[in-house]
Amino acid sequence: MKNEKITSREVDFAKWYTDVVKAARLADYSSVKGCIVIEPNGYAIWEKMQEVLDKKFKELGHVNVQMPLLIPESLLKKESDLVEGFAPEVAWVTEGGSKKLEERLCIRPTSETMFCDYYKDHVNSYRDLPKLYNQWCNVLRWEKETRPFLRSREFLWQEGHTIHATKEEAIEETDRMMEVYKWFHHDILAIPSITGKKTEKEKFSGAVYTLTNEALMYNGVALQAGTSHYFGQKFSEAYDVKFLNKENKQEYVYQTSWGTTTRMIGGLIMVHGDDYGLVLPPNIAPKQVVIIPIGNDEEVISLAKSYNEILNKNNITSYIDLTEKSPGFKFAEAEVNGIPIRIEIGKRDLENNQVTFVRRDTREKIIQALDIELVSYTKELLNTIQKDMYQRALDRRNSLTFEAHNLKDMENILNTQPGFVRADWCGDEACELKIKEIKGCKSRCILENEPLIDGKCVCCGKDAKHHVIWGIQY
Amino acid sequence: MKNEKITSREVDFAKWYTDVVKAARLADYSSVKGCIVIEPNGYAIWEKMQEVLDKKFKELGHVNVQMPLLIPESLLKKESDLVEGFAPEVAWVTEGGSKKLEERLCIRPTSETMFCDYYKDHVNSYRDLPKLYNQWCNVLRWEKETRPFLRSREFLWQEGHTIHATKEEAIEETDRMMEVYKWFHHDILAIPSITGKKTEKEKFSGAVYTLTNEALMYNGVALQAGTSHYFGQKFSEAYDVKFLNKENKQEYVYQTSWGTTTRMIGGLIMVHGDDYGLVLPPNIAPKQVVIIPIGNDEEVISLAKSYNEILNKNNITSYIDLTEKSPGFKFAEAEVNGIPIRIEIGKRDLENNQVTFVRRDTREKIIQALDIELVSYTKELLNTIQKDMYQRALDRRNSLTFEAHNLKDMENILNTQPGFVRADWCGDEACELKIKEIKGCKSRCILENEPLIDGKCVCCGKDAKHHVIWGIQY
Repeated sequence: MKNEKITSREVDFAKWYTDVVKAARLADYSSVKGCIVIEPNGYAIWEKMQEVLDKKFKELGHVNVQMPLLIPESLLKKESDLVEGFAPEVAWVTEGGSKKLEERLCIRPTSETMFCDYYKDHVNSYRDLPKLYNQWCNVLRWEKETRPFLRSREFLWQEGHTIHATKEEAIEETDRMMEVYKWFHHDILAIPSITGKKTEKEKFSGAVYTLTNEALMYNGVALQAGTSHYFGQKFSEAYDVKFLNKENKQEYVYQTSWGTTTRMIGGLIMVHGDDYGLVLPPNIAPKQVVIIPIGNDEEVISLAKSYNEILNKNNITSYIDLTEKSPGFKFAEAEVNGIPIRIEIGKRDLENNQVTFVRRDTREKIIQALDIELVSYTKELLNTIQKDMYQRALDRRNSLTFEAHNLKDMENILNTQPGFVRADWCGDEACELKIKEIKGCKSRCILENEPLIDGKCVCCGKDAKHHVIWGIQY
Repeated sequence: MKNEKITSREVDFAKWYTDVVKAARLADYSSVKGCIVIEPNGYAIWEKMQEVLDKKFKELGHVNVQMPLLIPESLLKKESDLVEGFAPEVAWVTEGGSKKLEERLCIRPTSETMFCDYYKDHVNSYRDLPKLYNQWCNVLRWEKETRPFLRSREFLWQEGHTIHATKEEAIEETDRMMEVYKWFHHDILAIPSITGKKTEKEKFSGAVYTLTNEALMYNGVALQAGTSHYFGQKFSEAYDVKFLNKENKQEYVYQTSWGTTTRMIGGLIMVHGDDYGLVLPPNIAPKQVVIIPIGNDEEVISLAKSYNEILNKNNITSYIDLTEKSPGFKFAEAEVNGIPIRIEIGKRDLENNQVTFVRRDTREKIIQALDIELVSYTKELLNTIQKDMYQRALDRRNSLTFEAHNLKDMENILNTQPGFVRADWCGDEACELKIKEIKGCKSRCILENEPLIDGKCVCCGKDAKHHVIWGIQY
């Protein structure tokens, strides 16, 4: 039975999205314009994301730190590209302790400046390098149009910041962290992201270049899912971060930064969700299994409890719903919350020596014998769900990936069914701006390793330099 | 050999403290006045604190959420005590996205307002209660005098916020969370805190009453180490948070909040540290053991590596120092960083079939046979260190706890060697203010279950109502 609180995805995708956010109790609007409350179900997903990524970062040698929330205006202004890029979207603290401040402090939109300010006093020689830092924190960007998770004024993220003694090492780090995000999207979130390079126009303010992972939502709209920036020596020159290299000469450090955010919760909804609510891939689900006993039969309750215990002992996160709600209500709740597997046990099942497994992704009911190897079967089913969800997302993306040879193609595609549009590009920003006139379509990324399609710019028809993916974005 | 970078604790306690913060690379000053950078060693301690507390909170049924950082002025003003208490020390955002805001937004000094604003739309009936929420976040208070960890403008903390259907339940929660903090201080941080109630003057703005855990630093100065507030219906009336009770009548919810912060890193330093640097209790040490091989002998390195592996496999966090520094330098570094146990292995040790354990707390060297049961011995030694550290802290506190019968006593004590001063009090704020004139001494807490000392107020000599602990505070 369809969830009455959720608008059909095919009828109104935007409404469907906010309905799911609300019905699955992931987030709610707050009294602060453009800022959300992340509710328990949403925050539990973020905690799981943090756990998975933090472990990976640490395995690669990164350590966590915490920089101040506030950045003095003079410090922010030292790197001109950065200030130009972020100035229009920062919030300023101008009063503190009942007094007007002598200098405005901005709430961090990102922390390159603070890290550079710290590095400069803590790096002397190549022996102090690399520094591989990360921080989990909140940032603020004064967006005009906001949407829960996808674009809100305040959001939570991790920002990695590293400095290195050589250009090669820093470039390697930039690539490595892009690979980490790709693994995170593919293996954990079951989202097939595409990796490429941002154009000059779309790169991070102040970066030499930006690598990006781009994901495609169910409706064909693109989501930037993780970025990794190579700064070269741009910031280290501006902030005077020098070290004595092996040749005993002063040199500016080589720098990177990389980040991903709570917007990926929005990505999960938009890639996997359906008319019944959220659908969580098992590898990111805070709870992978819910056990729902039907009725109050003692034997049923006792079996349900033992299932729950066995699963949790074997590293499958499970919970049992013993509340006083009706079974139907419990099923719907587990469904809207996206729990990957629901196990139903009733008295009749026991009499028939059976138990019912329900997959959230396909809503398929699977009757199994009571003496099934519970742990190995559940693990296998979770793996199958994870794989199937990835494959479905990949199929959907492929079916929404088009090729354009000229502006007319591009218009037709974007006006019919948006998606990823592959097209060649001459490298001229004027063409990017012209394409943007079609429903705000932007270059998502340059695919450096892929051959040109027909060698002609999709916009001006001149010789093309890059095979680019284009799309409308969140 | 004493660490040259650290001023002796007996010579200048304040300087000793900041020297340890710096030498152990826990935190550093930043370009933002009153705000610190929490460096990797300091943040690792905070991560461990979070891990321990978060697990406990969740066991007790709490779930994590995230409220917005910014609070509209109009919302803050709804509860008059709160606004009066916090208005002088908040920071205001007045500009965002290049425009002057219509309404000032304050950076949260605490989040009662935001939680109430959320509750009011999410609670209908007693069936929705209790709500047991917690959030890990940053807060900002515009302090004039700051000190790393102990008092800085921005700090990290957890703030628990709960609402209940009955007064009894809310009071129970207030008590329960105080017990959690007590356990955290005693069993994890090895800090013997004293639990009591704040006076009307010292309680949290807006609370009906505040429970507090008070710790005593090595120098006899007090530190508020965790507080738990009972709000009754004060906030729920101000913010209109009502529910339908079992009698089918509208009633305001009963509320609590409770928190502890990164200041406890400062507490760890000031209770346990010595002239060689930080001393970490094993239960909070991010790394409990460091293994230092002496020289490059292959057999030595291989044994050291196998020790490291065995310990980590058995849930003792250990690392091996294979850097190119000299053994003496490595010893000093492990010492300043406060690693509870150092294991030294050299070629000569191998020849003598022995290995050296060094306790950080006592700096005692213990020679053990090579065939010792490594895991059980190390676990036992860690337990002994934890217990001994608690006992030493308790002995120190007891030796710095005094009794005063009149103002003259109080003055003598506080001017000679400050500490906890036990004295009776009539309950009159005028007496609190008079006592405060002695080096800023404040009531730390009322000991409700302890009998009066002599029944006379230490200040005015009139009949006393409470047995109170007084002290100078950070």
